[in-house]
Amino acid sequence: MINKKIMNIAIIGLGNIGGYLYKYLLSNKKILSKKNNCTPNIIFISAKNKNRKRKFKIDKKKWLNNYLEATQSKNVDIIVELIGGAEGPAKKLVFNALKNKKHVVTANKALIAKYGDQLSKIAETNNVNLEFEAAVCGGVPIIRSLKEGLIANKINRVYGIFNGTSNYILSTMDKKNEDFKNVLLNAKKLGYAESNPKSDLNGDDVAAKLKILSSLCFNSFIDKNIHVEGINFIDKADIDNANKLGYKIKLLGVSEILNKRIYQRVHPTLIKKSSYIASIDGVLNAVIVDGQPVGQNVIQGEGAGPEATTSALISDISSILRGNIKFPFSISSNERKKLKYKVISDRLFSAYLRFDVLDKPGVLSNITNIFSKNKVSIKRLIQNPSKTKKNSSIIIITHDSKDKSLNKIIKQIKKKSYIIKNPKLIRIGISN
Amino acid sequence: MINKKIMNIAIIGLGNIGGYLYKYLLSNKKILSKKNNCTPNIIFISAKNKNRKRKFKIDKKKWLNNYLEATQSKNVDIIVELIGGAEGPAKKLVFNALKNKKHVVTANKALIAKYGDQLSKIAETNNVNLEFEAAVCGGVPIIRSLKEGLIANKINRVYGIFNGTSNYILSTMDKKNEDFKNVLLNAKKLGYAESNPKSDLNGDDVAAKLKILSSLCFNSFIDKNIHVEGINFIDKADIDNANKLGYKIKLLGVSEILNKRIYQRVHPTLIKKSSYIASIDGVLNAVIVDGQPVGQNVIQGEGAGPEATTSALISDISSILRGNIKFPFSISSNERKKLKYKVISDRLFSAYLRFDVLDKPGVLSNITNIFSKNKVSIKRLIQNPSKTKKNSSIIIITHDSKDKSLNKIIKQIKKKSYIIKNPKLIRIGISN
Repeated sequence: MINKKIMNIAIIGLGNIGGYLYKYLLSNKKILSKKNNCTPNIIFISAKNKNRKRKFKIDKKKWLNNYLEATQSKNVDIIVELIGGAEGPAKKLVFNALKNKKHVVTANKALIAKYGDQLSKIAETNNVNLEFEAAVCGGVPIIRSLKEGLIANKINRVYGIFNGTSNYILSTMDKKNEDFKNVLLNAKKLGYAESNPKSDLNGDDVAAKLKILSSLCFNSFIDKNIHVEGINFIDKADIDNANKLGYKIKLLGVSEILNKRIYQRVHPTLIKKSSYIASIDGVLNAVIVDGQPVGQNVIQGEGAGPEATTSALISDISSILRGNIKFPFSISSNERKKLKYKVISDRLFSAYLRFDVLDKPGVLSNITNIFSKNKVSIKRLIQNPSKTKKNSSIIIITHDSKDKSLNKIIKQIKKKSYIIKNPKLIRIGISN
Repeated sequence: MINKKIMNIAIIGLGNIGGYLYKYLLSNKKILSKKNNCTPNIIFISAKNKNRKRKFKIDKKKWLNNYLEATQSKNVDIIVELIGGAEGPAKKLVFNALKNKKHVVTANKALIAKYGDQLSKIAETNNVNLEFEAAVCGGVPIIRSLKEGLIANKINRVYGIFNGTSNYILSTMDKKNEDFKNVLLNAKKLGYAESNPKSDLNGDDVAAKLKILSSLCFNSFIDKNIHVEGINFIDKADIDNANKLGYKIKLLGVSEILNKRIYQRVHPTLIKKSSYIASIDGVLNAVIVDGQPVGQNVIQGEGAGPEATTSALISDISSILRGNIKFPFSISSNERKKLKYKVISDRLFSAYLRFDVLDKPGVLSNITNIFSKNKVSIKRLIQNPSKTKKNSSIIIITHDSKDKSLNKIIKQIKKKSYIIKNPKLIRIGISN
């Protein structure tokens, strides 16, 4: 079926994921050869530190002292980049590999979200594969599904839960009735959060994944126009309020076409309890794709960890072994489009707003007056006195309103002397 | 990327699905060419009746009076079989097509479940693709995911809801509080059930799909050893009882490896309300795959209809356009295994049993005595008197017990004079 019956692989980066992949490839060489009619052979390995203590034995004869040699060796067919980061050695490795006509497999979402368009052009020119299934939602085969299984579809929306750490924190705050800090501390102990979880919590991780998914779904170039909020500001009171109102809070990535404009956004969202996405708890990831003719498709699985990531890396490697040459972004760079990606300020949202205020006369009237002046109409209002009765918390659910009006309200009320805490704005639902 | 820049397609069978595919291919020729770097060109069409009134125009110059000519024409690269049925013209077409080195795309689960092994050998010998994504769960890209996206995994269980009609009936009986007959009648009116829904209701449709999935998951040949029950015997009382006990009833297909033996089974199952699979309502399909290293993966979507099926057919056609030659069952026929597929009689199940009995002294004692003699231990027993108080309904939930013991109990109690209706046995849960 394929001309070359062996393909030589260099694995660069031997951390948790690289190590797992290395062991997996050694012990599954036979079955992978049978399935792909071509043998995956590890020819080189390299990482920052040769002598670091590892849980597995490495074959020192395969070690490259200069990882870039992998890009120059005539014997290398596939380079697996597991260094990480959008710049520095990872960037150097992948650019050089593609320029030297090596197939590349990477788990590096930051690199693809930043340089994917450029890298894709080089891969296409040189007729090699650039595969990044592992960069988006680990073991969930969403990239392959978009490029192959769902190739027939005109997609108008892709959304979901793309970050296991933040989803674990939100669902644990809800289920165990604990606050953000405690849950985060525990998540670190359990290995569900990294020691520096910044990009997981501030939405950046989801943003990188969403940019990649958007460009695949809409045949466009990667676009920087994206609204990003994390979960850092969500507190237990919001989760409780959401529950009372029939919602769960989830950190969603959403990319959609409305009136020929694309909106990309990452933010905590109130989701009806009965909806599918509200039921995704813990470190799971889920991607929902709305397209024609297929309707709605959902893919759910483990989003991170060496096991799930290796499943994705092996699917990429296998695709190359079978000679399944593809455009990295589904369609040739010449055919990808510059589409209108818009900021969300003019998009309509129903929203949850929370104001913690001093309990004194005129406050409620002042707040509702500001809503009215900004032409935001109120669907529901709940005022909860605090236990001390000196303060109270005012929850307002709005009808569909322009995002900029909602933000204006927050800005105006924030300054008021009766405000005792930063006001909150959490958007509701997926579609408007 | 690919040598041949045009591939010629013959579509045989122009019913709802064939018609939709025909129109889709004509109007999406350009975008498919761009994505696959190869143009899909419809060269021939054929169906039983040339002059049948169709909702779309057909190009009569492309019409073949003898559909088998498509297998002999040198100009045909891909044959799409949409005739249906395991025997007759569909069988003749696909065997001939593969023998004549044509790629085949089919939506025919009956044919693949029966002759897939033989067909696969011919395809492999002749180095052509035999693709059948549309045969299993319509728009859910499960075949492609098993063969490509999840290729790394050793799968130990595949299960799910594979039939939209029966799932629609069960979930509507539950939600609208209606009985089987009424719901079925309505389902026919709404187009959710065919005029002859026999194979949808008796489990045969699910069985064909499950056999195909098993062989893909376990790298085995297709095996006839499968336990099949449908939903015909489920009545409203069972649904109500399930609800009271915290369950939903779903028609599941389950194939699993336990102690190196494979069990394939299709039957209504009591599933905990809180579980993911219990939340799949209406005509949706969902497939759950448990494997290593990936963990659990879920794929959900529309299981039937021309739109979803066309999405699957186009993914198959695109794979061929890109020259992504694959073994039809993931691995070469020489490497597929004859595994031990076992009948379920020795497998353990917790179960729900229902006995409608005359309300007279000694009945309960007789029933519990029969359980005891068969060494089936009772976890829970509920006796509901009927409104007339002459009869009552006894519901028993058992601990894990051998399937043959459960069936023996049914057989023994069925004969008793106090029994006024056929007793029921519904197994509980996925794993034991």
